[in-house]
Amino acid sequence: MELSLNTATVRKQWSLAQMIDGCARHAIRGISPWRDQVAAMGLKNAVSSIRQNGLAVTGLCRGGFFTARDWKADNLRAVEEAHELGAQCLVLVVGGLLPDSKDLISSRKRVKEGIAAILPEARKAGVPLAIEPLHPMQAAERACINTLEQALDICEELGDGIGVACDVYHVWWDPKLEAQLKRAGRRVLAYHICDWLVPTRDLFTDRGMMGDGVIDLPLIRGWVERTGYAGFQEVEIFSELDWWQRDPDEVLRICKERLAHC
Amino acid sequence: MELSLNTATVRKQWSLAQMIDGCARHAIRGISPWRDQVAAMGLKNAVSSIRQNGLAVTGLCRGGFFTARDWKADNLRAVEEAHELGAQCLVLVVGGLLPDSKDLISSRKRVKEGIAAILPEARKAGVPLAIEPLHPMQAAERACINTLEQALDICEELGDGIGVACDVYHVWWDPKLEAQLKRAGRRVLAYHICDWLVPTRDLFTDRGMMGDGVIDLPLIRGWVERTGYAGFQEVEIFSELDWWQRDPDEVLRICKERLAHC
Repeated sequence: MELSLNTATVRKQWSLAQMIDGCARHAIRGISPWRDQVAAMGLKNAVSSIRQNGLAVTGLCRGGFFTARDWKADNLRAVEEAHELGAQCLVLVVGGLLPDSKDLISSRKRVKEGIAAILPEARKAGVPLAIEPLHPMQAAERACINTLEQALDICEELGDGIGVACDVYHVWWDPKLEAQLKRAGRRVLAYHICDWLVPTRDLFTDRGMMGDGVIDLPLIRGWVERTGYAGFQEVEIFSELDWWQRDPDEVLRICKERLAHC
Repeated sequence: MELSLNTATVRKQWSLAQMIDGCARHAIRGISPWRDQVAAMGLKNAVSSIRQNGLAVTGLCRGGFFTARDWKADNLRAVEEAHELGAQCLVLVVGGLLPDSKDLISSRKRVKEGIAAILPEARKAGVPLAIEPLHPMQAAERACINTLEQALDICEELGDGIGVACDVYHVWWDPKLEAQLKRAGRRVLAYHICDWLVPTRDLFTDRGMMGDGVIDLPLIRGWVERTGYAGFQEVEIFSELDWWQRDPDEVLRICKERLAHC
């Protein structure tokens, strides 16, 4: 599996243009940009620069947040951008609880309805939607889909054109991970890697570099490969205290080194 | 459901003797002590003071940590202490990854074997074992049993004398919570409450007072009641930044007030 750079990994240091150059410099052949970075560069510029450098767009981050107000227009724009970029999928971070609500059940219902509402447009645009189950510690604030099983239940209900993004950080703890990956099969649209640090100092921005934590990456990678997934492995590290403070060329170099060992 | 005080809630301010007095003063009729506090007071003293005050011991915290070295002798002592205290259950925080290991599967296997090894002694002593699934964010460090479903699978495999402690903090996010509580039935041996704060500032010690967070406590309480559970609801708040800083009489007063509203 080849390496792709999820641009969150160096988002504090570089613009998207610099990230694209960085990928070329380090012989990284995949990129998964965030929409705010694409907007800052300009969609057309981003598309042409990514093409010129021969990068695969392993995903666009992100659609979702279906529990927020005005979710629909924004998600339709995201589908269009993913189409323009030739992204292999649009990653959905589905949103947490509805505003001022403690009602997880209704929030989850709203998420499913939201996905169902944009799916026809995504199919027309040829953009697969990838539900990313987020770690349960992010259920209230970012995503009320928290396991692969829950995401796959929705996929199976909605049919074609939808799958999952499997990020080890969010799912490594799940006792049903192997079984659900087997179930997922071709629905695995993206595979994200990083590591779980012990101790973890922040719920959102303290992810570790592969090899620095406790996730058995070769094991999970094997399970993912057995689904038939033949895409990239995408490094996505949110790290306020460490990797976002470093020279981004060093970050990319270490990502590549660690990939060879983990 | 009546209130029980899990003594972690005021552990920074009071000794166990003071907690027992506090329960009496606030007309709280249940207590769930931690073993280090019992040891500090002396087991015999603790037993006699708890009896004199007519307190139900809704649990003893804790056995478990089966992935640590020397787990067996310590767990057998815990069973004995729970027996002496007349505890309704011995709560098991099962332990995280094996030392220097990333192998969750083996860690979980070890946990199951450990529980199986002490279960006969627990049965003889008339002490039900209560597996407490801990939030997935604590999988590496404290407990590699992370869902009610996983805990119940073990219970069903091991038979009588074992059940679960359901702590809302650990399970509120679980899309299968209602279904698994229905499945659990009489295996629910303890019900712990507090709240999930938004934002949460620490993975271990930033729990909220009931009503200050996003957990739908009346909903979950209803599900627990429908299992046939007729025990106490036990307040357990780890709160370095807030409740551990306050006057413990104020903490107990507010616990009681909030219980009436949440």
